[in-house]
Amino acid sequence: MRSAVRRLLSSPEAAPFRGAPLVVACSGGADSLALAAAAAHVARRTGVELRGLVVDHGLQDTSAEVAARAADQLAALGADAEVVRVRVEGSGGLEAAARRARYRALRERRPPGSLVLLGHTLDDQAETVLLGLGRGSGARSIAGMRPLDPPWARPFLDVRRATTEAACRELGLEPWRDPHNADERFTRVRLRTQVLPLMEDVLQGGVHEALARTAQQLREDADALDELAAAERRRVEVGEGLDALALREKPAALRRRVVKDWLLERGVPELTDAHLRAADALLSDWRGQGGPALPGDFVLRRAHGTLQVEAAGRKPPNG
Amino acid sequence: MRSAVRRLLSSPEAAPFRGAPLVVACSGGADSLALAAAAAHVARRTGVELRGLVVDHGLQDTSAEVAARAADQLAALGADAEVVRVRVEGSGGLEAAARRARYRALRERRPPGSLVLLGHTLDDQAETVLLGLGRGSGARSIAGMRPLDPPWARPFLDVRRATTEAACRELGLEPWRDPHNADERFTRVRLRTQVLPLMEDVLQGGVHEALARTAQQLREDADALDELAAAERRRVEVGEGLDALALREKPAALRRRVVKDWLLERGVPELTDAHLRAADALLSDWRGQGGPALPGDFVLRRAHGTLQVEAAGRKPPNG
Repeated sequence: MRSAVRRLLSSPEAAPFRGAPLVVACSGGADSLALAAAAAHVARRTGVELRGLVVDHGLQDTSAEVAARAADQLAALGADAEVVRVRVEGSGGLEAAARRARYRALRERRPPGSLVLLGHTLDDQAETVLLGLGRGSGARSIAGMRPLDPPWARPFLDVRRATTEAACRELGLEPWRDPHNADERFTRVRLRTQVLPLMEDVLQGGVHEALARTAQQLREDADALDELAAAERRRVEVGEGLDALALREKPAALRRRVVKDWLLERGVPELTDAHLRAADALLSDWRGQGGPALPGDFVLRRAHGTLQVEAAGRKPPNG
Repeated sequence: MRSAVRRLLSSPEAAPFRGAPLVVACSGGADSLALAAAAAHVARRTGVELRGLVVDHGLQDTSAEVAARAADQLAALGADAEVVRVRVEGSGGLEAAARRARYRALRERRPPGSLVLLGHTLDDQAETVLLGLGRGSGARSIAGMRPLDPPWARPFLDVRRATTEAACRELGLEPWRDPHNADERFTRVRLRTQVLPLMEDVLQGGVHEALARTAQQLREDADALDELAAAERRRVEVGEGLDALALREKPAALRRRVVKDWLLERGVPELTDAHLRAADALLSDWRGQGGPALPGDFVLRRAHGTLQVEAAGRKPPNG
């Protein structure tokens, strides 16, 4: 686990953060406690200051105690530890609201120029992929979490949760067991305790690792297509429009990405896959037809060999 | 369901097969019986001959009876029906061996120039995606089945299995219930009867559809990257090697595909993701190092700004 931390911090993408204090976000659970121990070792070796941030969500009666205990454990590991109390509010369910509040607090409290280490494990990654699969909107929804997404760094995405628990036992660290992690009202908890164990049984093992590996490859594929689409867009933009003839020759998935980015930039909101396929028919199946109506009262049309988007009802300048 | 058949057959990719007899592969199960009924309707409307092929795998005592009954049902729907008896043998488990024998027989018996309609449903697609996820080797393993992959055509990949069962009831067709479909020694059966129902419950519905949608998008992404990689390879091939400097500028997922296709063509067998990442380090992280050993006793190296692959131990012509 120490080498997982070291490896991530020595990657070229982490170079801008080198020398700054290292921040560990710690809940007191096994994952983040093992992370804090590994980070403390690396910080000592590299002569870097270690800071610990404990977010107290105030969602359980004992949350202040739990947070204080985690801060003590961080201090014992040599970190300058701070408890941040947040208010969890807003829409989208308790889990999502708590996550938003936590990330906001961590972002605000981290010293400028520093990375915040998060204890997400391979198990968390596998659960995230399955959650995304249930939503089913393409590669991005199952691409999982990135190891390095500044200011966030997740060195344990290749480490099983059980390994972090074993590490805590070995180091004599007593992790906190969050009762929320056993509360079956949470979708993620049921994925962890019911769906994934059943899949491991039926598919004869290796499912967590397979999901994490798939997430990484899909993320890289999606990154490549995004990068290629951005380059392609620079080639096919003609004034306010897109060159339909040049774009038509490209693979469908690339075309749709180019059209999507271009429409989003023009303020068209909430594009679905169905909108993009209808838009693409103006390129791949052009028979002089009118274009689809898009959300936000926009209309797409093809004119003079280009795609044009305009607010519905308004007369186009060249129409 | 009729319109699903019509839509697939009228797609531009199906044009070369128009006018030829339409073949339905039928097991006598609800999926393929409903498909035969829909295909019979479309064949009558378009004045095309309908043929039915029933494969008898000979794996159950009653298989000859079951096949004869399916052939009778096909004949009653107006198809010229034939039973093909196959021998299931070879490695990789019973399911895989039966599938190989079935596809071979269908391919051999179809009239030249004709498409063979297969009754795979959205449920089959979802099961295929989950099976692929368990293997976890990138987009291709979870991209599922193609609607049109000549000579195979799968018009029901957007149709739920329950819909085909309802159609059989409505049409007075009595489907055969294959006992293998309830045999929990088969991985696919447990995915169908245990894993997917649990996922539907935990993720609150829509999982089959989400898996099928994801498969389609990933297939299109993978197709796009393959096409772009083939074009890129034509640009970076220099004699027997690859132009390392030109390739280095491309996104990692594209680079790895170019290198993979190039190595496969040179006869390097069984490339894993780890091999390709090691190979890619010669492009993305070049510090004068030697290249990785590859399966089949090949060695990759970088020389004169190009990647070269050669049989290990043999002196390279320019070394």
